[in-house]
Amino acid sequence: MQRRRTRTLLVALGATIGLGLALAPPAMAQEEDLASVVAGQQVALDTLWVMLAAFLVFFMQAGFAYVEGGLTRSKNTNNIMMKNLGDFALATLGFWIFGFAIMFGDGTPLFGTKGWLLLGADNSPAIDDYEGVYSSISWSGVPLAAKFMFQLVFAGTAATIVSGAMAERTKFHSYMIYSFFISAFIYPIVGHWIWGGGWLASLGMWDFAGSTVVHSTGAWLALMGALFIGPRIGKYTKEGKVNPIPGHSIPMAALGVFILWLGWFGFNPGSTMAATPDIAHIALTTNLAAVAGAVGAMVLSWQLFKKADISMTLNGVLAGLVAITAPCAFVAPWAAVVIGLAAGLLVVVSILFFDKVRVDDPVGAISVHGVCGALGTIAVGLFAQDKYAPGTTGDGLLFGGGASLLIHQIIGVVAVFGFCVVTGAILFGGIKLIFGLRVSAEEEVNGLDIGEHGMEAYPDFAPTVKASVPYEDYPMAARKASLKSEPPASAPRPVEVSAQ
Amino acid sequence: MQRRRTRTLLVALGATIGLGLALAPPAMAQEEDLASVVAGQQVALDTLWVMLAAFLVFFMQAGFAYVEGGLTRSKNTNNIMMKNLGDFALATLGFWIFGFAIMFGDGTPLFGTKGWLLLGADNSPAIDDYEGVYSSISWSGVPLAAKFMFQLVFAGTAATIVSGAMAERTKFHSYMIYSFFISAFIYPIVGHWIWGGGWLASLGMWDFAGSTVVHSTGAWLALMGALFIGPRIGKYTKEGKVNPIPGHSIPMAALGVFILWLGWFGFNPGSTMAATPDIAHIALTTNLAAVAGAVGAMVLSWQLFKKADISMTLNGVLAGLVAITAPCAFVAPWAAVVIGLAAGLLVVVSILFFDKVRVDDPVGAISVHGVCGALGTIAVGLFAQDKYAPGTTGDGLLFGGGASLLIHQIIGVVAVFGFCVVTGAILFGGIKLIFGLRVSAEEEVNGLDIGEHGMEAYPDFAPTVKASVPYEDYPMAARKASLKSEPPASAPRPVEVSAQ
Amino acid sequence: MQRRRTRTLLVALGATIGLGLALAPPAMAQEEDLASVVAGQQVALDTLWVMLAAFLVFFMQAGFAYVEGGLTRSKNTNNIMMKNLGDFALATLGFWIFGFAIMFGDGTPLFGTKGWLLLGADNSPAIDDYEGVYSSISWSGVPLAAKFMFQLVFAGTAATIVSGAMAERTKFHSYMIYSFFISAFIYPIVGHWIWGGGWLASLGMWDFAGSTVVHSTGAWLALMGALFIGPRIGKYTKEGKVNPIPGHSIPMAALGVFILWLGWFGFNPGSTMAATPDIAHIALTTNLAAVAGAVGAMVLSWQLFKKADISMTLNGVLAGLVAITAPCAFVAPWAAVVIGLAAGLLVVVSILFFDKVRVDDPVGAISVHGVCGALGTIAVGLFAQDKYAPGTTGDGLLFGGGASLLIHQIIGVVAVFGFCVVTGAILFGGIKLIFGLRVSAEEEVNGLDIGEHGMEAYPDFAPTVKASVPYEDYPMAARKASLKSEPPASAPRPVEVSAQ
Repeated sequence: MQRRRTRTLLVALGATIGLGLALAPPAMAQEEDLASVVAGQQVALDTLWVMLAAFLVFFMQAGFAYVEGGLTRSKNTNNIMMKNLGDFALATLGFWIFGFAIMFGDGTPLFGTKGWLLLGADNSPAIDDYEGVYSSISWSGVPLAAKFMFQLVFAGTAATIVSGAMAERTKFHSYMIYSFFISAFIYPIVGHWIWGGGWLASLGMWDFAGSTVVHSTGAWLALMGALFIGPRIGKYTKEGKVNPIPGHSIPMAALGVFILWLGWFGFNPGSTMAATPDIAHIALTTNLAAVAGAVGAMVLSWQLFKKADISMTLNGVLAGLVAITAPCAFVAPWAAVVIGLAAGLLVVVSILFFDKVRVDDPVGAISVHGVCGALGTIAVGLFAQDKYAPGTTGDGLLFGGGASLLIHQIIGVVAVFGFCVVTGAILFGGIKLIFGLRVSAEEEVNGLDIGEHGMEAYPDFAPTVKASVPYEDYPMAARKASLKSEPPASAPRPVEVSAQ
Repeated sequence: MQRRRTRTLLVALGATIGLGLALAPPAMAQEEDLASVVAGQQVALDTLWVMLAAFLVFFMQAGFAYVEGGLTRSKNTNNIMMKNLGDFALATLGFWIFGFAIMFGDGTPLFGTKGWLLLGADNSPAIDDYEGVYSSISWSGVPLAAKFMFQLVFAGTAATIVSGAMAERTKFHSYMIYSFFISAFIYPIVGHWIWGGGWLASLGMWDFAGSTVVHSTGAWLALMGALFIGPRIGKYTKEGKVNPIPGHSIPMAALGVFILWLGWFGFNPGSTMAATPDIAHIALTTNLAAVAGAVGAMVLSWQLFKKADISMTLNGVLAGLVAITAPCAFVAPWAAVVIGLAAGLLVVVSILFFDKVRVDDPVGAISVHGVCGALGTIAVGLFAQDKYAPGTTGDGLLFGGGASLLIHQIIGVVAVFGFCVVTGAILFGGIKLIFGLRVSAEEEVNGLDIGEHGMEAYPDFAPTVKASVPYEDYPMAARKASLKSEPPASAPRPVEVSAQ
Repeated sequence: MQRRRTRTLLVALGATIGLGLALAPPAMAQEEDLASVVAGQQVALDTLWVMLAAFLVFFMQAGFAYVEGGLTRSKNTNNIMMKNLGDFALATLGFWIFGFAIMFGDGTPLFGTKGWLLLGADNSPAIDDYEGVYSSISWSGVPLAAKFMFQLVFAGTAATIVSGAMAERTKFHSYMIYSFFISAFIYPIVGHWIWGGGWLASLGMWDFAGSTVVHSTGAWLALMGALFIGPRIGKYTKEGKVNPIPGHSIPMAALGVFILWLGWFGFNPGSTMAATPDIAHIALTTNLAAVAGAVGAMVLSWQLFKKADISMTLNGVLAGLVAITAPCAFVAPWAAVVIGLAAGLLVVVSILFFDKVRVDDPVGAISVHGVCGALGTIAVGLFAQDKYAPGTTGDGLLFGGGASLLIHQIIGVVAVFGFCVVTGAILFGGIKLIFGLRVSAEEEVNGLDIGEHGMEAYPDFAPTVKASVPYEDYPMAARKASLKSEPPASAPRPVEVSAQ
């Protein structure tokens, strides 16, 4: 940070974006020059916002780690921290090398084929005279590095969603492998369809910040993962009883939700990828939906369980946020409340449903990100109003815009679901065949922290009895389970189940 | 995030604020146009800052949750997380529907009467040619949604302060009810007086970022709540002994304080509601006061208890931050140190005082936010210097400005105290009468996590003996207590008291 | 927040930076005026970025507290929270009174001699017509308060690094004393050499954001501290065995790493001290290095220990971040990956080395911040490319720039190492002589939380046996140790060692 260095940095920069006089004293500024200075300030202002939004979304990685860690058992906490750190690491490499090019590179309606390793031609932050291979994102007037960083943290989000549904039983190295494939190939293809000028974009489907692109994609893949790996030992009994497996730290999960909520203020308003006063309206709808989701889930769980259930309420917040992600820029504040409320109610029902059909999703990721992501994407077709973003979605069904938008949204939801089911089956099926997906029953019972990472998460705290049953004392059923990695058919009431 | 969409978004936006050419290539920009582009950039820049500040203040919700959770017992942690999440949810709805209109809507010197549901006429971000019903906040050149979001997170702060003083014994649904009333009606009325063009504003009282408006209001209501609900079982003995009830996680409280400190950099500098270089001076005074508060509380507690007391030091940071909130823009850095130091010393004395008079405030909220909020508000009358904000407060008593400012500040402090005492008495008295304020002694002893939310916060960790006494083994006194929800007159040394 | 107040605030501000018309309606704006308005917006924009970056770096204090707290034992957690809060408090006072003047004040090539207490003459944000005593930082066009706040949080970082290497055995008041000296005198002198126009700057050494200035300085002082205080009781046995002392909460450490990673996006990109599109490239290299560091450390530890070691992986992230701090603005993305990867591998080797030579560094601070800081600083001499910051470093050795840059970097690394060794010896030697550095063996065994702060960190959770051995039951060796504060020569396998 020395004078001559940074001054030249700035001038150099100025040159690259045609405002050599950015720092010239006012006296020197002729009209021509002044216009270029102003143009340069716009670029700096937009870049500042896009990067700050990216930093907020990056921090969501900590939020996901804490939500997932808090809602699972203390014997797997290290593993969950490692997964959430590791998947972002592999997402960064995979999205840098392949993903960004597939998602935003010029190519076919199905995927991009140019600009690997971020080395494609590109004269960003130019907009109107853009020349390069990333034309689908050339509408944003920021440097390529800014476009990449903002899109990267989105890719990281999609990747990390999967880990929640497969928590407490997945082999670490298998997890690393599919995280790479998801963020390098599967997510970018979906992204190309909707944000990269692909066929769904051409069709007229709208997903402002990624209810479908990011959240549903991650969740439908999570669903396939949960199906291929099977439920945790002791979660379901032969009699069809569902044993709750309480998370080991609710305040950890609560902090995670607050961090995610904060991050969403970068996720949704940041998707303008330009510093416009619009971000205020988008933040407003985002916050109203989060709140409505919390209220919906809290009230419904209160009715169902006679208590204000905290894990349901936390998921209600996330449900509302996921649902408003697609429509946040297109709908009125009151509509955001309706959408969030619907998501808050739906997420409770959906979580109970997936338990009913014995799909073991420890944190409710499939319901929160998948089901509510679909809800929010479809809601665009109902609640969108042209006045909030003239010339984009047009009016939705409820505002006289007819059913075409709604139909396009539904087509998008179904297409992405289908694509994720197929690719997820290939991905998880392949990994299960080659490396195996699931740890041994012994490791699962004793915990993945020791098994995968050789370290306890909380060595100084004495565990409760139910949290510390060594494999030897564990029902024979578990051993059998280890042979055909499936839940014990006739397991007695499992020891790790809470007494409450 | 597709070109045509967002470009039109921007143009649409441009239109609404009269800079249709915001993104026009420099070539096109005639002087007239350029001026409008520059004006538009100012709006975008201001909106960016106001929203980012709002996001930082929003994150303070997590800080409050962690400070309060860390300083209370592990059997009530879920309840505290739920309260802090729930009160922000209700604050959002209450402030959206009623609060903002009462606080900033045109009306009487006592409260606003226009602009419910944020639906009032308003041509923000216009300033000089403002037309609308929120004229008291028309000095800020950002969209209405930005003004609302920034003010909303302040309302959420006021609401959440109350929960600290009533922690570990309040019925959850009663908590939800009064949180709504505070953020929908009581806080907005005080806000109208001082920030909404009300009678205290006309009188010439100054509170830059809310030492009184936000912190004292929350704290005086908390005081009334603590008085109506009474102390926790076992906190005070007949012999007048005060039993310390240690918090269950000091690192949780410490993280909470760091998060609040971070949030305050949005709280105070953000109150410019415009992107001005001023924010640097305000952040500087804010940080110096926080540090001085920490030093003051640490040194004094070290003297009193022969140890560097961590919970006192943490409260010292908050005390300094609360105290500098009113004067942060009006005083010199050295004055900020003096004010923070005074707050750090005062908060220790005040916490000991309230224990002396048997007002049980588990986290010291009344002392931190109430007493130090009053200190800071009054300090404006002493330390303000016209040069820091010409034409606002003028010089304080110590700088030759005479006593009038000091008197106006004191009037404001007293008026708000009186209003909160009266409305607090009505609110908590009414709820106590209709729904009851306090959980049963049995639930209090066993913990609100199970009682109110049916879930332990830490099911995997074995509690210490003193942290896990079931109601059956608890002194008879508790049972009696449950009859007249009041602390046991002659309780023996309670089991949950730390041995240290 | 009332109209008349803030409008005048803005106008007042306008006056001070020569844009009285900043808020004038477009209609009024003549060309002259418009230019000054635009110049004013540049100042506001730069100030906004510098302050937001400062807030992110401030939050790193929480990150350091959680990394250090998580990687140490639960009986010392309060002490670590207090140290990390206390050192920032003293850094604020010390850097305000002395440090900033020594670092950036005009004076000699060795240290500044003007501008104490931030009271020196200064007409910031003026750049080209700068007049004042802080000319070495006059290249940044923001107010003095903004320059100070940004530099202060860097000073706080340097100070807090030391605490990690001396954790779990240092007297609290001694810690406070040397924290003050480091941030008030030692760190600012190094800073003056490289960033304050001192002799290393003149020589042509480059350290963009402080791999050496901040991280190595803190770490080499930490090394001296660790040498003077000696290893923790039971860490090393006579037979040369190294007993692992596992941290008490890995998720706490993981959150700390995520917070530090977030903070680094202010640390590195913010070092432009101006809002330029450059921040995108710098954030990109920063993130790539962090990820490569994680991968390097994870893979190597996996090879060495047959498990994906989480504490090594966490340190790998920090190693990559520390290493890229100096070169972040000068190198290509692929070079950032190479540098980060090298740091991730090196940090594992280095941590094992320091254990080998019996330097007890509980969190690996010396390896992360010192060794990898040196690596990154030297890497500038190899990987720098003129095109990324024309007219600054020029091309490094690998790009045909010759060896001169590399040599200057090495000279800088060696000079700072030497200075820290000497001043560290004087500082810690002096404190050891006068106040004593180390707590008694009894206090060390029982924990500093009770000993120094009279309070447990987790009173509600039952400790494991190994985490709760009272001094009486502790091997005689410990008593002997207390006499000559050194590790027991012939200690039996210590009880607090994990069984794993």
